[in-house]
Amino acid sequence: MPESVSSIAEKAGLSPGVLMHVGEARLENARIEVLSYDQEKCRQLEAGVEDLDRLRQEPGTTWIEVQGVHDLEVIQQLGKALGLHPLLLEDVVNTEHRPKVEDYGEFLFVVLKILHFNREEMSIEPEHVSLVLGDGLVVSFLEADRHPFDPVKKRIMAGRRRIRRLGADYLAYALVDVVVDTYFRLIEELGGLLESAEDRVLAEPQKETLLMLHRLKQVELTLRAAILPLREVIGNLTREDSDLLSEAIGPFLRDVHDHAAHVIEASEAHRETLNTFLELYHHAVNNRLSEVMKVLTIVATIFMPLTFIAGIYGMNFKRMPELDWYFGYPLTLGVMLLLALAMVLFFHRKRWL
Amino acid sequence: MPESVSSIAEKAGLSPGVLMHVGEARLENARIEVLSYDQEKCRQLEAGVEDLDRLRQEPGTTWIEVQGVHDLEVIQQLGKALGLHPLLLEDVVNTEHRPKVEDYGEFLFVVLKILHFNREEMSIEPEHVSLVLGDGLVVSFLEADRHPFDPVKKRIMAGRRRIRRLGADYLAYALVDVVVDTYFRLIEELGGLLESAEDRVLAEPQKETLLMLHRLKQVELTLRAAILPLREVIGNLTREDSDLLSEAIGPFLRDVHDHAAHVIEASEAHRETLNTFLELYHHAVNNRLSEVMKVLTIVATIFMPLTFIAGIYGMNFKRMPELDWYFGYPLTLGVMLLLALAMVLFFHRKRWL
Amino acid sequence: MPESVSSIAEKAGLSPGVLMHVGEARLENARIEVLSYDQEKCRQLEAGVEDLDRLRQEPGTTWIEVQGVHDLEVIQQLGKALGLHPLLLEDVVNTEHRPKVEDYGEFLFVVLKILHFNREEMSIEPEHVSLVLGDGLVVSFLEADRHPFDPVKKRIMAGRRRIRRLGADYLAYALVDVVVDTYFRLIEELGGLLESAEDRVLAEPQKETLLMLHRLKQVELTLRAAILPLREVIGNLTREDSDLLSEAIGPFLRDVHDHAAHVIEASEAHRETLNTFLELYHHAVNNRLSEVMKVLTIVATIFMPLTFIAGIYGMNFKRMPELDWYFGYPLTLGVMLLLALAMVLFFHRKRWL
Amino acid sequence: MPESVSSIAEKAGLSPGVLMHVGEARLENARIEVLSYDQEKCRQLEAGVEDLDRLRQEPGTTWIEVQGVHDLEVIQQLGKALGLHPLLLEDVVNTEHRPKVEDYGEFLFVVLKILHFNREEMSIEPEHVSLVLGDGLVVSFLEADRHPFDPVKKRIMAGRRRIRRLGADYLAYALVDVVVDTYFRLIEELGGLLESAEDRVLAEPQKETLLMLHRLKQVELTLRAAILPLREVIGNLTREDSDLLSEAIGPFLRDVHDHAAHVIEASEAHRETLNTFLELYHHAVNNRLSEVMKVLTIVATIFMPLTFIAGIYGMNFKRMPELDWYFGYPLTLGVMLLLALAMVLFFHRKRWL
Amino acid sequence: MPESVSSIAEKAGLSPGVLMHVGEARLENARIEVLSYDQEKCRQLEAGVEDLDRLRQEPGTTWIEVQGVHDLEVIQQLGKALGLHPLLLEDVVNTEHRPKVEDYGEFLFVVLKILHFNREEMSIEPEHVSLVLGDGLVVSFLEADRHPFDPVKKRIMAGRRRIRRLGADYLAYALVDVVVDTYFRLIEELGGLLESAEDRVLAEPQKETLLMLHRLKQVELTLRAAILPLREVIGNLTREDSDLLSEAIGPFLRDVHDHAAHVIEASEAHRETLNTFLELYHHAVNNRLSEVMKVLTIVATIFMPLTFIAGIYGMNFKRMPELDWYFGYPLTLGVMLLLALAMVLFFHRKRWL
Repeated sequence: MPESVSSIAEKAGLSPGVLMHVGEARLENARIEVLSYDQEKCRQLEAGVEDLDRLRQEPGTTWIEVQGVHDLEVIQQLGKALGLHPLLLEDVVNTEHRPKVEDYGEFLFVVLKILHFNREEMSIEPEHVSLVLGDGLVVSFLEADRHPFDPVKKRIMAGRRRIRRLGADYLAYALVDVVVDTYFRLIEELGGLLESAEDRVLAEPQKETLLMLHRLKQVELTLRAAILPLREVIGNLTREDSDLLSEAIGPFLRDVHDHAAHVIEASEAHRETLNTFLELYHHAVNNRLSEVMKVLTIVATIFMPLTFIAGIYGMNFKRMPELDWYFGYPLTLGVMLLLALAMVLFFHRKRWL
Repeated sequence: MPESVSSIAEKAGLSPGVLMHVGEARLENARIEVLSYDQEKCRQLEAGVEDLDRLRQEPGTTWIEVQGVHDLEVIQQLGKALGLHPLLLEDVVNTEHRPKVEDYGEFLFVVLKILHFNREEMSIEPEHVSLVLGDGLVVSFLEADRHPFDPVKKRIMAGRRRIRRLGADYLAYALVDVVVDTYFRLIEELGGLLESAEDRVLAEPQKETLLMLHRLKQVELTLRAAILPLREVIGNLTREDSDLLSEAIGPFLRDVHDHAAHVIEASEAHRETLNTFLELYHHAVNNRLSEVMKVLTIVATIFMPLTFIAGIYGMNFKRMPELDWYFGYPLTLGVMLLLALAMVLFFHRKRWL
Repeated sequence: MPESVSSIAEKAGLSPGVLMHVGEARLENARIEVLSYDQEKCRQLEAGVEDLDRLRQEPGTTWIEVQGVHDLEVIQQLGKALGLHPLLLEDVVNTEHRPKVEDYGEFLFVVLKILHFNREEMSIEPEHVSLVLGDGLVVSFLEADRHPFDPVKKRIMAGRRRIRRLGADYLAYALVDVVVDTYFRLIEELGGLLESAEDRVLAEPQKETLLMLHRLKQVELTLRAAILPLREVIGNLTREDSDLLSEAIGPFLRDVHDHAAHVIEASEAHRETLNTFLELYHHAVNNRLSEVMKVLTIVATIFMPLTFIAGIYGMNFKRMPELDWYFGYPLTLGVMLLLALAMVLFFHRKRWL
Repeated sequence: MPESVSSIAEKAGLSPGVLMHVGEARLENARIEVLSYDQEKCRQLEAGVEDLDRLRQEPGTTWIEVQGVHDLEVIQQLGKALGLHPLLLEDVVNTEHRPKVEDYGEFLFVVLKILHFNREEMSIEPEHVSLVLGDGLVVSFLEADRHPFDPVKKRIMAGRRRIRRLGADYLAYALVDVVVDTYFRLIEELGGLLESAEDRVLAEPQKETLLMLHRLKQVELTLRAAILPLREVIGNLTREDSDLLSEAIGPFLRDVHDHAAHVIEASEAHRETLNTFLELYHHAVNNRLSEVMKVLTIVATIFMPLTFIAGIYGMNFKRMPELDWYFGYPLTLGVMLLLALAMVLFFHRKRWL
Repeated sequence: MPESVSSIAEKAGLSPGVLMHVGEARLENARIEVLSYDQEKCRQLEAGVEDLDRLRQEPGTTWIEVQGVHDLEVIQQLGKALGLHPLLLEDVVNTEHRPKVEDYGEFLFVVLKILHFNREEMSIEPEHVSLVLGDGLVVSFLEADRHPFDPVKKRIMAGRRRIRRLGADYLAYALVDVVVDTYFRLIEELGGLLESAEDRVLAEPQKETLLMLHRLKQVELTLRAAILPLREVIGNLTREDSDLLSEAIGPFLRDVHDHAAHVIEASEAHRETLNTFLELYHHAVNNRLSEVMKVLTIVATIFMPLTFIAGIYGMNFKRMPELDWYFGYPLTLGVMLLLALAMVLFFHRKRWL
């Protein structure tokens, strides 16, 4: 991923904590949506940064969804309004930061990646997601105009009992769960590609197949690179002794941890399969070389002796009694035929034919 | 295992804890069998979900065997009757969940896999098994109409002293032991296949053999993927400080842990052997190419010079004194014969013949 | 080791703790020999199971040596007489159990393997050894009619001071030490085979050599599989906080642990050497192919142009002035010779000759 | 890195703690610059060793920057003036020492490497950097006349609030951060080279490409060898329970730790890509051999039978009726043509053409 | 290292603690030299075993240097005089024992290896060194007549302040440091060999080069096998909570630990380089095969069609109008030439020429 560090490198030498958006800006203006709910009621509103402090005071759970992390001013104001650490904000806007979980005492900060698979270019496009879990508060930061968290929003608004009853920590879990579930879809898609690749490997070996196999391998490596820290992140969360995580959240965290482990194992199985395909491919290439060589050898072994015999009777010696025999010519042809048949038999015995 | 995640992916976005059967429904209706026993007596009855609460109250050990985890309604009712956590039920019906052990305080929850080997397709079909261990209670969930736990049932009904005397934890151990024992049978079957593969590798190398070796390798990988978490699961159980596990159960758990370790080691030995076979196979392929090339080289090296000599005396120069010699022709043939013999000797010395 | 699990698989479904001999019965009847000694005196007697309880009461150290673990009745009675756990007895008679150490409170139980190398078949035959260390008591179980522990017996009877003075734990150590020492002999024998293999690798590459190298590699893997758990076993013993192990035994245990580590390192060095040999072997095969191809290319490159020239002057065109030249023939031969020399020079420059 | 140990070897046998500069002296005289600042004011001065003791007494934070570690006398005097341990000084002047962190109680000592990439020679030139963190004091040692720390100096003099407010530990962190940021630039440059290499691999395989790939691989290995201990160093710093590190520094240390982890992951992705390129390269080479063999086989298979036919009618038998046929010659040519076409068709079907 | 265990194997079955010299006796008689010093004075004397007890009583630090560990009687007496454990003495005389550190309470026992590189045979000859650190006492055991510790002796006698001031633990450190420093020299020598090997690899590939690379690899493996336990040994020493190690020794131990880590990293870099060389070698071999095949293919492809044409006009058909053409012969030659040129052009386009 040479590109993924390029813009960080530009930033080298800047004071840490100075906000600088790393990545592509996909949305014109940052949009802030707030969802405030408890077991009885649920209010959704689009808010400005100036309303946040007031909103926070409300009882129940407040979910602040920020779309467009490139809007540094808004992020900065929001950080000030909520009292977030400058380094936390820096990681929110640096869309190339690795997944991690960080305990800032008052806040738990989680960085995740949603992975989108580009089937045409056989590449993975990561989307940077950050979550801040505070007391009765969840702030989610997204860079794109996609809406991966909408199903959760619908569940809240539909009044599903559990998500309404359990607090902010369960909401944070539900959002992490959405991210992990996208990996299942990715793994499924890759599995389908693998199956179609198998047919191509067992058929004629072609350079395109080899390139495809290697590209799939790199995709699996990227996938693994994204999920390994995620599993660690969730593992840390389950061990985290933070007041922000109630005891009831334990089984849910272990559940999402299991899911991440499942994805990693499936991805490793994919890589094993890819390695098998690569071996089969190389076998097919070798096999083909052997086949080519066999054809050459069979042709040469049959025709060289025959040509030699023809060459003998093409010599111009004065005294070559065979040339004057009445059946010299058909006899020679017969000998040649027998020789050729013997060769064919020999190759048949050696199973080359 | 691309298929194994497909149906989980469909589930993505649903609220966690909402039951959804993942996998193939193999049985029409869920069947619940209850075995209630202590040292003196033993009662077996087929029960409905509504009887479970009453049955639980009975003294001694109660084993509730549920067959058919696809029957979500029954599972849900049973979970309510016994007070099981929604996530636990979710893992019971998700037949693609990884092996694990989870401590829910009042209950210990164990997920296992029975592996069935399909010899025709050289593939492994996993069967999802979940066990819930409560105070004086074991609930076992199976998806299929197979009856792997029948030997244990017979032991209980036959009044074997130990299983009757030791409580629910020993029953749970006995069920886990049954699962691990199936791995021994699998390993044995794979060992037999390996032996038959050896003969095919040492004989003529064929593409089918290569495919078989690679398929066996994937089977071993699947086996390992199933047992590694199992060993971890049992290892965690031995360390588990749960009130549900009496001290007397310790040696038994360590015993089954040893068995799992044995299976893993045997499987690793199999993979080493497979790697050796693959190397031997590739050697055989290379060797064959060398042999082909040797035949070609020997033929070419013998006949090219001879054909050249014949070509010389096939030239139409006016003055070629040899052509007029009385013994020109036999002399030339003699020289050719000597040359051929010299070549054969040369190749013999080089051990190509 | 496909065979090694076969008989365990047969046992699947049986109640754990039910004794069943796994392995080959090599001795007709179990023999029990007892050696009772302290610093002053030493008594050796052949005893029946019924005498054991009485013998145990004697002061000093009692060593009960049982030969023939297939005699289930005797083992069962002995276990009852000494109060051994049923699972312990199960591991004593299961001659395919992995090395391990298990603390049963009153007893320390150690399972080990003596490895016999079968030079003809290039395979390792493991011999199952179990040791029980109790208070003033050591019970050793052997399956075979070999007597690996005789040197220790002789040392005791000869009145060597240390073994007489130090108690049962030192005796157990001495027996473990005997087992580890057999590995040194095995490593030495394998080392000798490796040296002889080196010569064969550097000479002509042959399929037999390849098979031998692969077989040696598997022997080393089996050896490692046997010693790795042994090292762990002894490592656990050194950390074991059992009352049965006096403090004086510490350095001895660490010593035998060092020996096991030495054997493992030597075995790993062997495997590295084997890998080098395999690489050299494959180089030799490749090299040979190159050599074959060179011969072919040289011959073809020299004779094809010459044959072509001969072919030209074999054409039957009416007007070919060269054919009428007086020195046409010798000139042509001279040109051919020069061409051949030029080719040879070319190949010499390319270092193909 | 055979050179990197050469001068240490010369030193073997010397008393440890005896200062000896290992490495190349790049600067004539050591230069000492001192920056003394607190939230209000900031003073920069070039100082001699004799002033150091007095400077240290000043309130606020003192940064002593030493350029030219080859000047052993100055280093020695400085060490005495500040009370640094002889082994610490030894590691300062040994420019080949590995990155590490060492807690000397009163001082924390950090050794780092700045890596400069020499694009012409495809090699990495490490620059040795040592930092000493004391109470209100940071001493930085550089060997070269480069000024990597100038941006930090500018930030201090520009009166940036955070660096002025937070103390010596933050300054030390800022310097470490500068070093880590240089790795991002390196990774970016290597990524660019990788991209250009991809084109060369997919084009004609050439020995130069292979050499370049192997050299890039070694560069990545060197990079990794430099960063692995660095990550460890920073990991240790975050766990370090030193009074010299205030609590406020925690998030910053974890941040730089994350950066180091990011660089390591990017470097591992590079190596995976390089391995893919090497495999593709070898495929291209093999492919080419196959192509060569195909051309040979096609030509030989077409012309050998044709030449044989021509040879037959070149024989000088008296009675060869075909020779007298009116259309003998064109018929033969026609047969030859048909044969050649059949061959071409055959190769076309086999997809060799 | 098959030889390294041979003599240990002979010893199998002997009582542990019975002294038996394993290895080659290089010196006729054991020599004992004693150096007794404190900050003020320093006495050197050659002593017999009988004087040792008295010497030990002296204040200050006593260094007993024993040369010739084959002299079992002297070692035994010395052990008795100083009260050393029999197992300790066993490891002193077993010159094939692995590096280790062992805490015998009153004594710390360290086993090390000095590695001598035999450049002719490309092999490493290890020299067994043992150190015993007691209260105010260091005993060093060497097997050979080399004097690796002389520089330390000189430093003591020259009155260097630090070694005189710091006690026996510093002396022990200084001796360990000498051993580690010899590894630097070895690494440097191997680095030089690597550089010279690079040239041979890039030139013509020869079997000797391959053998040399494999031998170097084995040397690096031996080196690593010797240093890995050493690093562990020193790591254990730094953690060792022995009264024999003063606090002042901590930084020195960590320093020598760093050096060992440096050597291991350098050795691993060497092995990576060797692997690269081996890959380049194999590339060169493959490349050569390709080149050979190209020459063959070019020659065959040019001359086979030409020879065929010549063959056509060598046929003896009655009616072959071309034969009677006036310019038939030169025309045919011209066609041949054009054909050959076309081929050459074709190969040039394919970049085979």
